[in-house]
Amino acid sequence: MTAAAETRDNPTIGTDQIRAINRTAAFNRWAGIEVERAESGEAVLTLRWREELGQYAGFLHAGMIGALIDTACGFAAATLVGRVLASNCQVSFFAPAVGERFVARARVVKAGRRQVFTAAELFAATDTEERLVAGGSTILMTAQ
Amino acid sequence: MTAAAETRDNPTIGTDQIRAINRTAAFNRWAGIEVERAESGEAVLTLRWREELGQYAGFLHAGMIGALIDTACGFAAATLVGRVLASNCQVSFFAPAVGERFVARARVVKAGRRQVFTAAELFAATDTEERLVAGGSTILMTAQ
Amino acid sequence: MTAAAETRDNPTIGTDQIRAINRTAAFNRWAGIEVERAESGEAVLTLRWREELGQYAGFLHAGMIGALIDTACGFAAATLVGRVLASNCQVSFFAPAVGERFVARARVVKAGRRQVFTAAELFAATDTEERLVAGGSTILMTAQ
Amino acid sequence: MTAAAETRDNPTIGTDQIRAINRTAAFNRWAGIEVERAESGEAVLTLRWREELGQYAGFLHAGMIGALIDTACGFAAATLVGRVLASNCQVSFFAPAVGERFVARARVVKAGRRQVFTAAELFAATDTEERLVAGGSTILMTAQ
Repeated sequence: MTAAAETRDNPTIGTDQIRAINRTAAFNRWAGIEVERAESGEAVLTLRWREELGQYAGFLHAGMIGALIDTACGFAAATLVGRVLASNCQVSFFAPAVGERFVARARVVKAGRRQVFTAAELFAATDTEERLVAGGSTILMTAQ
Repeated sequence: MTAAAETRDNPTIGTDQIRAINRTAAFNRWAGIEVERAESGEAVLTLRWREELGQYAGFLHAGMIGALIDTACGFAAATLVGRVLASNCQVSFFAPAVGERFVARARVVKAGRRQVFTAAELFAATDTEERLVAGGSTILMTAQ
Repeated sequence: MTAAAETRDNPTIGTDQIRAINRTAAFNRWAGIEVERAESGEAVLTLRWREELGQYAGFLHAGMIGALIDTACGFAAATLVGRVLASNCQVSFFAPAVGERFVARARVVKAGRRQVFTAAELFAATDTEERLVAGGSTILMTAQ
Repeated sequence: MTAAAETRDNPTIGTDQIRAINRTAAFNRWAGIEVERAESGEAVLTLRWREELGQYAGFLHAGMIGALIDTACGFAAATLVGRVLASNCQVSFFAPAVGERFVARARVVKAGRRQVFTAAELFAATDTEERLVAGGSTILMTAQ
């Protein structure tokens, strides 16, 4: 079943509902993860850098990179199929994650009845540029 | 080259040095990640549950699960080959991560000249039992 | 649900049934994949080297490495839960896959109602030794 | 270093050279993997269906899906940086791989000095349509 077909079968969940879900996650509030947009199988998250988010060399911690990619993928899936549970998340680290803020962009690659496959990229941003620092994908189970 | 061979070529790094590295990571201090043991290609981390670490349903956040597995794998590799940089981390989520504390156990599977392959499991623990909740692996580049 | 619990709920499938399934796969017959053992959440496959299985440098082709790991994982899962369908397979290549024959050993890590998580290693063997050349894992969906 | 920068440092390898490499791989000749195009960090492979390539249900075998994705990714990387060696390949299976022929499209996502990250999709094709059946990614080490 295509993402488009899924949308027909499910009440669409949009940016407002995803923002509400985001606020219920204590970790997301602590870290400062914000939902810029979430609809139609896509989600964009932003995170402002601060020191508590860093690993030993002062780059964004791999756990935070994973959290942003996993969360963006989960929200992208939720816009199409509602409640989901992650089975697997894999992240590749392309370059040191150094920036004033970070932007995660996720999209649904394939939405089926039982599983949703998603992919995401993470960019480190300053006022003047965006740089690709990581990419990944998740597999999610639909609620049954 | 086997892990054993690598150890001969590198000054061994043990629990005390890994604990010192762990303290230099702001994220690890905030989250409360502690090094129980790190030596000879193995590392064991612990994390006490608290609410800020949770996702929307109150389970340990996938980002924290990834952080524990990625960090444990990195420390296990560092005991054999010193400075490393993660290329990829993949995590499978077996069961809801609910517990009083969490224990990540990582080991080096293959240490080469340029790359180190590691694997880890994450357990949710109470006073009386440990339950496997996630597993994963990382690929790390050695410093050159 | 644990693997042990799953076994109680399903008629066990053993080596003979898995060998019969293996013979129905045209690719497995062509390649010469043989089932040494498959029962209780574990499977061991063997493959004799011949030139058609090689990549440009004469090592076992990555596709064959993946085929062995994916097939061993699928058979290990099938012994516990019957019919399965792979969602994802990931393989890490530790060393050049050169040998007279290859042995893949897979095991179920976690068997749930909807998903089965497995892991496997691939060894290159001669008459006198076995050498670890690759490792991987798969996620499988149960039939529903 | 960007893919563009890499291209400046390396003599570009194009479709003709990649086709020559493809012909030296015995497995690729047996399976019938053909190089439609390979240049500038991209590669397109095709494979005509025949029965020996099938698993037990008559779909393209997961090993062949992995072989196509891994090979396409390796060729895409080789067009930018020359000789490479795969560290990891991960494939997600979106739908049964049934078709008259299969088309794998790969691209370099990030080319560094030591590592190249790639991604690919696999399509099942008939005369009238193409359907996405699998997607994956590989991490490759550059020759040193």
